[in-house]
Amino acid sequence: MAVSINGLKRTVMCGEVTEEYIGKRITVMGWVQRKRNLGSLVFIDLRDIKGILQAVFGEEINKEAFAIADTLKSEYCVAITGEVVRRESPNNSMVTGQVELKGEEVVIFSESETPPIYIKEDLDAAENIRLKYRYLDLRRPDMQKLFVIRHKTTSIIRNYLSDHGFLEMETPILTKSTPEGARDYLVPSRNYNGQFYALPQSPQLFKQLLMVSGFDRYYQIAKCFRDEDLRANRQPEFTQVDMELSFVDMDDVMTLNEGLISKVFKEVLNVDVKTPFMRMPYKEAMDKYGSDKPDIRFGMEINDITNIVSDMDFVVFKSNIEEGGFVKAINFEGGAALGRKQIDKLVDFAKDHKAKGLIWIAYKEDGVKSSIAKFLSEEKANEIKEAMGAKDGDLVLIVSDAYKNAVESLGALRLHIAKEFDLIKNKDEFKFLWVTEFPLLSYDEEEKRYVAEHHPFTMPMDEDLELLTTDPLKVRAKAYDMVLNGEELGGGSIRIHDSKLQEKLFNTIGFSDEEAEEKFGFLLQAFKFGPPPHGGLAFGLDRMIMFLGGTDNIKDVITFPKNQNAACPMTEAPGMVDEKQLKELGIKVIEKEDK
Amino acid sequence: MAVSINGLKRTVMCGEVTEEYIGKRITVMGWVQRKRNLGSLVFIDLRDIKGILQAVFGEEINKEAFAIADTLKSEYCVAITGEVVRRESPNNSMVTGQVELKGEEVVIFSESETPPIYIKEDLDAAENIRLKYRYLDLRRPDMQKLFVIRHKTTSIIRNYLSDHGFLEMETPILTKSTPEGARDYLVPSRNYNGQFYALPQSPQLFKQLLMVSGFDRYYQIAKCFRDEDLRANRQPEFTQVDMELSFVDMDDVMTLNEGLISKVFKEVLNVDVKTPFMRMPYKEAMDKYGSDKPDIRFGMEINDITNIVSDMDFVVFKSNIEEGGFVKAINFEGGAALGRKQIDKLVDFAKDHKAKGLIWIAYKEDGVKSSIAKFLSEEKANEIKEAMGAKDGDLVLIVSDAYKNAVESLGALRLHIAKEFDLIKNKDEFKFLWVTEFPLLSYDEEEKRYVAEHHPFTMPMDEDLELLTTDPLKVRAKAYDMVLNGEELGGGSIRIHDSKLQEKLFNTIGFSDEEAEEKFGFLLQAFKFGPPPHGGLAFGLDRMIMFLGGTDNIKDVITFPKNQNAACPMTEAPGMVDEKQLKELGIKVIEKEDK
Repeated sequence: MAVSINGLKRTVMCGEVTEEYIGKRITVMGWVQRKRNLGSLVFIDLRDIKGILQAVFGEEINKEAFAIADTLKSEYCVAITGEVVRRESPNNSMVTGQVELKGEEVVIFSESETPPIYIKEDLDAAENIRLKYRYLDLRRPDMQKLFVIRHKTTSIIRNYLSDHGFLEMETPILTKSTPEGARDYLVPSRNYNGQFYALPQSPQLFKQLLMVSGFDRYYQIAKCFRDEDLRANRQPEFTQVDMELSFVDMDDVMTLNEGLISKVFKEVLNVDVKTPFMRMPYKEAMDKYGSDKPDIRFGMEINDITNIVSDMDFVVFKSNIEEGGFVKAINFEGGAALGRKQIDKLVDFAKDHKAKGLIWIAYKEDGVKSSIAKFLSEEKANEIKEAMGAKDGDLVLIVSDAYKNAVESLGALRLHIAKEFDLIKNKDEFKFLWVTEFPLLSYDEEEKRYVAEHHPFTMPMDEDLELLTTDPLKVRAKAYDMVLNGEELGGGSIRIHDSKLQEKLFNTIGFSDEEAEEKFGFLLQAFKFGPPPHGGLAFGLDRMIMFLGGTDNIKDVITFPKNQNAACPMTEAPGMVDEKQLKELGIKVIEKEDK
Repeated sequence: MAVSINGLKRTVMCGEVTEEYIGKRITVMGWVQRKRNLGSLVFIDLRDIKGILQAVFGEEINKEAFAIADTLKSEYCVAITGEVVRRESPNNSMVTGQVELKGEEVVIFSESETPPIYIKEDLDAAENIRLKYRYLDLRRPDMQKLFVIRHKTTSIIRNYLSDHGFLEMETPILTKSTPEGARDYLVPSRNYNGQFYALPQSPQLFKQLLMVSGFDRYYQIAKCFRDEDLRANRQPEFTQVDMELSFVDMDDVMTLNEGLISKVFKEVLNVDVKTPFMRMPYKEAMDKYGSDKPDIRFGMEINDITNIVSDMDFVVFKSNIEEGGFVKAINFEGGAALGRKQIDKLVDFAKDHKAKGLIWIAYKEDGVKSSIAKFLSEEKANEIKEAMGAKDGDLVLIVSDAYKNAVESLGALRLHIAKEFDLIKNKDEFKFLWVTEFPLLSYDEEEKRYVAEHHPFTMPMDEDLELLTTDPLKVRAKAYDMVLNGEELGGGSIRIHDSKLQEKLFNTIGFSDEEAEEKFGFLLQAFKFGPPPHGGLAFGLDRMIMFLGGTDNIKDVITFPKNQNAACPMTEAPGMVDEKQLKELGIKVIEKEDK
């Protein structure tokens, strides 16, 4: 049976034993990373969360300890006591590489079977095995490092916000279902059979109510839930750094969060982030990058060449322009050297991303090649070259299409080329910007109604308020997204704090008064009692940690994540429950044939 | 319509405007607490979370502002700009009472209907109204103070634990149902119809697995869930300060947490808590106080007088002692002065608390009175008096019963007397202690099996390990509760870290191997791979804030609590959901007649 700790005290962590401990008697506790038996000597690498320390056992040092050490196997959990000495052959790649521990006593706390996965960095094991034995997967030093970063990051965030007058406040997990947005997870009520709680998709309404209550500045590192089909890097439960502030406008929220993020990146990664961040209106982001979260670590911006090509005798351009479409282009520097097959792949990529087609012009040393050579005069080719700032050796890629298809397909192509041709040289560069002036509404063709782009509590920009009646799609919102290297790190908005305006917006997105009352009645009610101007922001914490930890897998930054089917291979959740309990809840499972 | 904040900046909070601001021009923002119109002057008390500032408006100061100020009503949300001046008639009961703000500009952000509850301290309103208009209830300064304390407390706890090597780690909310303990809240799975997640009653298993993973020290301020019938001060979702440590024994956990708690009480209340706390074995707590969470702010300890009265010719004592029962007593100092009716009430109280009866002996100046006078010789009365340390004027109260009934009824009576007769003079006194050496198991008469007293992962005391086979009820656990003024503030234990011992314990509490595997298989599996010795503790955060904030209502320390039916009167959760969504989840509501 395993040995208890009975009075034995750890005096230092393995990874902290450096030269200053030489001559001291210490006790360390941890796991056997590796054993080497050289006959008269046994070497044990002992691992804890701080690092690895080498211990050496021999008959000369301590006979009994030597005998026990010889029985140790990988992942046994043990304590080793002895004197720290200088190593004869130092290992300069380890923090503790100058010293070793002379093993005078060893206590086995517990033994280990052979683990089904290796406890080492950069493990290449199947994901379902890693998730099933998550407790072993989490022993790997590169995984542990991510959770140390996660802890450090949340500590910095909490202290920064606390220092800036925010109160950490908890909002409920058992809430009301508000069927706008994603699908809610439901919890059947035992007290009210036939009724259900919902797990919150975000604390949005509650944090706005806390502002109505006068709490001035709220934050919470909050669990949020969405019962969606899982794509890569989506989890059914995820974590937001959620905040709300009263008596602020956009600038206040953005400036405060630039300070927060630059502090996090400085303290976690020792990276200096320049503030203030660039601010780019949504329209400009779409025009130049075909994306509302542009990656600005490289150029290749989208240009509009509609005017230049409008006089060409080429039916694709002509009919598109007549229908109100645009001709957009990017310049792939050095791309003229691509072979025909490579170019064809780019054409296919653009088509897969909704472009009607992709036209190319290669400016080679020995002349211009193009997919539309027979429509392209030398003069026009030069005009385009000049407009695109292209030079010999470059490849201009053109999409002629409706605005959205044109910029979005070129935006996707731009990212694709950067990745395929390794255009982002400095992988450790962090390029932040704010995207602002988002459209408040879009039109849902399926539902035949306007829908809120951000959420229906977002304040319109003051100068666009009148347009809400006359031309709703033109209304810009007081919304802002923080974008990092082409990913949305967080987003927020100034909220409506006026029940009449809120009702008007609900009506614009097609809620009847009854529906608005049914869904958000308590918010409209609250707004009758002097709500303050307020706004806020939420960061995706999981994604932030992915950036800080340098992983592109969200499962790496969550202790016990779910798989693609929203199941946990370790605990086997979800699982069956008692018929009796379902009866108490007033529900029953639909048998297959009933469905 | 409400006015937006358009460039207007708050320069200081209302409650922070003291004499150092005299002569400065400031802008404050908040809510109208009170308006007094003296004809030529209008006084506005403006409130924000920091406090109240008086503003004065007059034609002489600013005509336009004066006119607007005159239209203000309670709870309008406004900004006021002007110069801070010394008040002619200071109000020394207010922090800002030496100054006032000359109202030169006023902007109304939003108007307010007359609130359905008063925004004032010590509100005496019906609870359902307070909960329905929770956003207004939370405007009350005494409520806001509690959430400031809550924020401060969690900040101190987080930083203390972080400084002591703990990592803040999140564990899942969508977990597996483990039908031991209280009833789980269930969440139907859409991907696996007929299967359910459970919301966690605590992160117990996950935090133990994090120790198996080698994270060494974990903490989380964690939401926990129990679908129980709600008694006073129980909520369906509540918050624990949850921690777990590897390579520790009981003393380590207790000492660390004494440091934590004394820091919290010092920094929040400026109270010096003496460490180390007293440690009292469970047996002693039951013997002396009839409770496993004794209130030691006053004496009146329970004494055993079985030996003294065993020779009395009184059948109640005789038959009870013959059956193995005990005669226990407390001494109510000065209680002899009570009238007969008052004593009868104490008798009734004891009987309501499972005592077969309550015998009393009043030692009066003019002789001994007693409910068993005819069996009580003067000599025996004096013997009892001496044993109880009683003096003239005292009242000795005696229960003759089985051990449990005797001590528990006297323990309850002791608390009742202290409350009724106001024996605890210093209400601000905080008397901490640890109760230790709890029994590991008890016997459940209904289920005819042993059940774990704490939970089935608790380590037996080393010296009692053998008893697990021979006399399970005698086994004491490595468990400890932190008790404050008669309430349990937190509790924990050293855990079993040995799969064989864990299996043995599961068998002792009547789980078959299959059941153990079905319920906790992943834990047993994890314990095969070198689990470390570990232990932990969890505090009830809500209760801690109640102590620190001086409230005895748990709803006061939770932002949006549920009522006694686990419903939220504000959002009207739980609520109806779409038939379509239930179908996706593969469940249906049982119609009344089906049940």
